[in-house]
Order: sequence, then C-alpha cells, then structure tokens
Amino acid sequence: MILHLLDYAGVAVFAISGALAAGRKSLDVLGVVVIALVTATGGGTIRDILLDRNPVFWIGEPTYVVVIVLAALATIPYTRWRRPPLQSLQIADALGLAFFSIAGAQVALGAGHPGLIAVIMATITGAFGGLLRDVLCNEIPMILRKGQLYAVAVIVGASIYVLLLDLGISRWPATLTGMLAVAAIRFAAIVWNWSLPVYSLPDAADRSPD
Amino acid sequence: MILHLLDYAGVAVFAISGALAAGRKSLDVLGVVVIALVTATGGGTIRDILLDRNPVFWIGEPTYVVVIVLAALATIPYTRWRRPPLQSLQIADALGLAFFSIAGAQVALGAGHPGLIAVIMATITGAFGGLLRDVLCNEIPMILRKGQLYAVAVIVGASIYVLLLDLGISRWPATLTGMLAVAAIRFAAIVWNWSLPVYSLPDAADRSPD
Amino acid sequence: MILHLLDYAGVAVFAISGALAAGRKSLDVLGVVVIALVTATGGGTIRDILLDRNPVFWIGEPTYVVVIVLAALATIPYTRWRRPPLQSLQIADALGLAFFSIAGAQVALGAGHPGLIAVIMATITGAFGGLLRDVLCNEIPMILRKGQLYAVAVIVGASIYVLLLDLGISRWPATLTGMLAVAAIRFAAIVWNWSLPVYSLPDAADRSPD
Repeated sequence: MILHLLDYAGVAVFAISGALAAGRKSLDVLGVVVIALVTATGGGTIRDILLDRNPVFWIGEPTYVVVIVLAALATIPYTRWRRPPLQSLQIADALGLAFFSIAGAQVALGAGHPGLIAVIMATITGAFGGLLRDVLCNEIPMILRKGQLYAVAVIVGASIYVLLLDLGISRWPATLTGMLAVAAIRFAAIVWNWSLPVYSLPDAADRSPD
Repeated sequence: MILHLLDYAGVAVFAISGALAAGRKSLDVLGVVVIALVTATGGGTIRDILLDRNPVFWIGEPTYVVVIVLAALATIPYTRWRRPPLQSLQIADALGLAFFSIAGAQVALGAGHPGLIAVIMATITGAFGGLLRDVLCNEIPMILRKGQLYAVAVIVGASIYVLLLDLGISRWPATLTGMLAVAAIRFAAIVWNWSLPVYSLPDAADRSPD
Repeated sequence: MILHLLDYAGVAVFAISGALAAGRKSLDVLGVVVIALVTATGGGTIRDILLDRNPVFWIGEPTYVVVIVLAALATIPYTRWRRPPLQSLQIADALGLAFFSIAGAQVALGAGHPGLIAVIMATITGAFGGLLRDVLCNEIPMILRKGQLYAVAVIVGASIYVLLLDLGISRWPATLTGMLAVAAIRFAAIVWNWSLPVYSLPDAADRSPD
C-alpha cells in the first residue's frame, strides 16, 4: 500500500518534469499531457516490451494514467502564478529515480535474467522516459549530455543491488541499499556538480564510417 | 470488403502525408518511401505492440505495405507537375483519422481493456504515425504543437464511442457517431482555425529538475 | 563458431560507428556507451519486437552487450591519439551490413513470413540501429538523406536472397550471393559516389495536409 503510493508519487514527479519540459517548448495543453505521459510511462513501457511482460504496466493498471494526467494538468495553473519549486522537484526526482530503477532491476531478475540485463533494465526504467521526452522535444537527450550522473547513479545503484543479492544478502536490505546509492549519487551530483568527462572528436575525424 | 477498401484508402492518405513531409526535407526517393511507411503504419504498429497483438497488422497482411509504397511513389511524379491538392488531402486525412482511431478503440475494447485505455489506443493508432514521421524529420511533432485539434478530435470522438457503448447503444451506431465526431471536430478546426491554448513557461522557470 | 565471431565483429563495428557519431556531439562517456548500444542493437531489437521473438537477441545472449561496451570504450582513447581509420571502418561496416541484413531476412522467412516482410526485416535489422542513433543525436537519419545507397543495398541484396530461395537454390549459395550483393552495392556507392535522386518539394507545396 505504502509502496503503491510511493509508486504513484514517483510517476507524478516524472509527469511534472515532462510538463515543465513541454512548457519550455510552448506546446499546447494536450501536447503537455502527451509529453507528461510519455515521460512518466516511457521507461517502464520499453522495459515491459523488451521483457515481453503483458500487459504493459499502465495498461494493466490505468490509475497510473489518471495520476499522470492530473499531475500534468495541475502543473499548468501552478506555474502561471509561482515558479516551480525546482529544488524540491530535483529531490523528488532523485527519489523517484531510485525507486523506479531498482524496481526495474527486480523485474528483470524476477524474470530470470542475469545481473547485466537487470542493470540495463534499471537504466531503461529510470532514464528512458526522459530520453523519449527529449526526443519529442527535439533535443539531444539530457542523460547523454554532460550531465549530473543521472544514468551513472542508476548503473552504480543497480549494480550494488545485484551484487548484494549475489552475496546472499536478503531482498529488503539489498533493495534499500541500492535505492540509497542511486539517490546519494544524484544528490552528490546536484550539490557538488559532479559530472563525467565529455568525449569530443576533433574536426579532423568528422567523417562517419557510413 | 468496403471496410477493407476504406482501410487501404486511409493508409494511402497517411502515406501521401508522409511523402509530402519527406519532400519538404529533400530526402532521397527511398527515404520518402521509408517515411511514408512509418507514417502510415507507425500508429497501428505501436498499438499492436503495446497490446501484444500478433502478428502486427501489416506483417499479417503485407498488402498494406504495397499500397503505401505505391501511394508514396505516385506522390513523387504527381507533385513534379502539379501542386498537391492540399484541401482534398486534409479532408481525406480527417476521414482516415476518424476511421483508424475508432478502429483502434475497438481493438482495445475487444481485447477486454477499459475505456480509458481504448481512448489512448485510439489516439496512438490515429496520431502516432504522424508523431514518428515528425521525429524522423527532426521536428517537434505537429500533434503536440499549437495545432488544429488533431489529438483532441480523436480523444473526444473515441470517448463518445466508448460512452455510447457503455450506455448500451449497439456497435454500428456508436461507431458511426464516434467517427463523425472525430471528422466534425477536425473539419471545424480546419475551417475556423480552432486551437487549444498554449502552455508557455516564462524564462524564470527555465531550469529543469531534469 | 566462425559465424558467431563474425556476428560479434559486426556488432562491434556498429558500436564504433555509434561512438564516433556520439563524439561529434560532445556527449559524456556514458552517453557514448548508450549511443553505441542503441546503434548496435537497435535494428535487431525492433525486428525481434515486431516478429514477437522472445527473448530479444541481446537479452538472450548478453555477451553482445559486453562486446559493444568494450568496443565503444576502446574507441574513446584510440581517437584521442589517432584518426579513426574511416576507410577500413566503412569496409567493415559494409560487411556487417551484409551479414546482419541477410540474417534478418532469414529470421523472418524462418518464422513463416512472406518475402516482402523478409526484405523489410532485413532493412530494419541492418539500418534501423543507425536510424535510432541519428534520432538520438538530433539529426535527420542518414539513411533517409541523399546517401550512399545504404538501404538500397539491403533491399536489393535481400530481394536477391529471397528470389534465389524461391527458385529452389539451396540456403548457403543464396545467403552468400545475397550478402555479396549488399556489400558490392555499398562498395560501388562508396567508390563511385552513387546515390538516388532527391525528392524536393517546391515552396508552393509547402503546406501539409494536416
């Protein structure tokens, strides 16, 4: 029950991040709702399709759709009068990321896949909704650019979760440690502006093999 | 039989809209065919994957592919000598949208999904081919921008269709009313230039929680 | 066994092409790895989802993921000191394309689909990884632009493969002839700069039907 409320809260935070991104592109109200839906459901949907899980999570439980639409619609009047509480949203987003990515790893392990696939599914569940959002907004996805260790946090946290399970640690401590690691790395990246090195080719190499 | 011809006609109209969009980007002839295929099959393909229907509609009936390729190839010489009949194409497109979106809702209801999922599948079937077309052409999807009530028409029409069925109206009247609603809203939007309000964030909010 | 090594080599070449494309966009190191993964697995993944094959090829055999990540990571230091050997990469890429596209056609025929679907699956397997790479890098996909007969090579080669099988030729000669045709057309296009005509609409037609 509490897990379910957390789940809805996480989806709502992703929906708000989608609505804010849409607002920066001056889309119409329905476009905002579509972007919010894609942002909040995209990662889990790609995971479910890749793992052939039926039904896809929001089709089996349409309450997700209702929560997302309400969160997106509430964002619009809110930001007419007040600035979005970006600090709080970032913290909520980091918690949502921690929650969804470890849940994604659990789904993959539960279906009998190896740890490497679980880490990839964690990344897809946590980060590919935002990737689709950025593709629809016609931008290079944020998680690929010099960023704030968004995908790194997921990969490290999910790897810790998988390793702890492999070492025989039981499920709840492993889950909490993994989520904590994701959130901690994101917080550190936000506070101290950590980032990965950029790979930038000189112009001389600027001709593709195909 | 007549339904089948309508189906092919609708697919052909979507293929032509894809070919014209490709022409504005100066793609090569094969690129035009690929864009036409993605535009005309994309929405139904995403619907079939999300609902786990096998085979995907055009894989089960490759005649669709033939119709689309011919429509795209016919568009190229036609527009060398004459301007495309945009008015007629818009009308055909509205009819195609009405036909495909209500068909998408029927598929979802037939698979036992609730009305909310049926409305979403109607939107995906009718509008996501054009969304993929715009992503491939490197533009923010038209249906998300201040537009001519493209997705709105689908949502209202599909909702009416679902409601009528819920009220015990039998299938054919409900289908025709739903299609009529989609087409009527599109026509009204084209003729009177109706549109939804735009959601545009001030610069002060221009920092995303990512 | 040798086929398997060829398979890994092909995937590695696609990963390198993805990493080089990412380098031109100044992504961070992890972004480079993600683009390499999408480029190298994207086409086969879409094929497997469309044909409802489970598990998706790299989920069933995660060694692919390891090969791709290593190839992408090796590309980064290499290009710091030396220019990428673009000529050799183009040749390797043409061989990889030949290999994967005919393999994609085989998968479709093996699942009982007709020749037209096999040719489409060959194109998707060979070319849609690069298409996703370009979408993520926010560019109009290379295979759609006036190019070097990338998709044409696949379509002609896969069609020859399907026709030879239809004529009763046995599997290995048909496979080799199909692959040879793909590679030969790509080589010819690279050496003599062959390309398809471009379809470009005049401004007068620059209004979309929707």
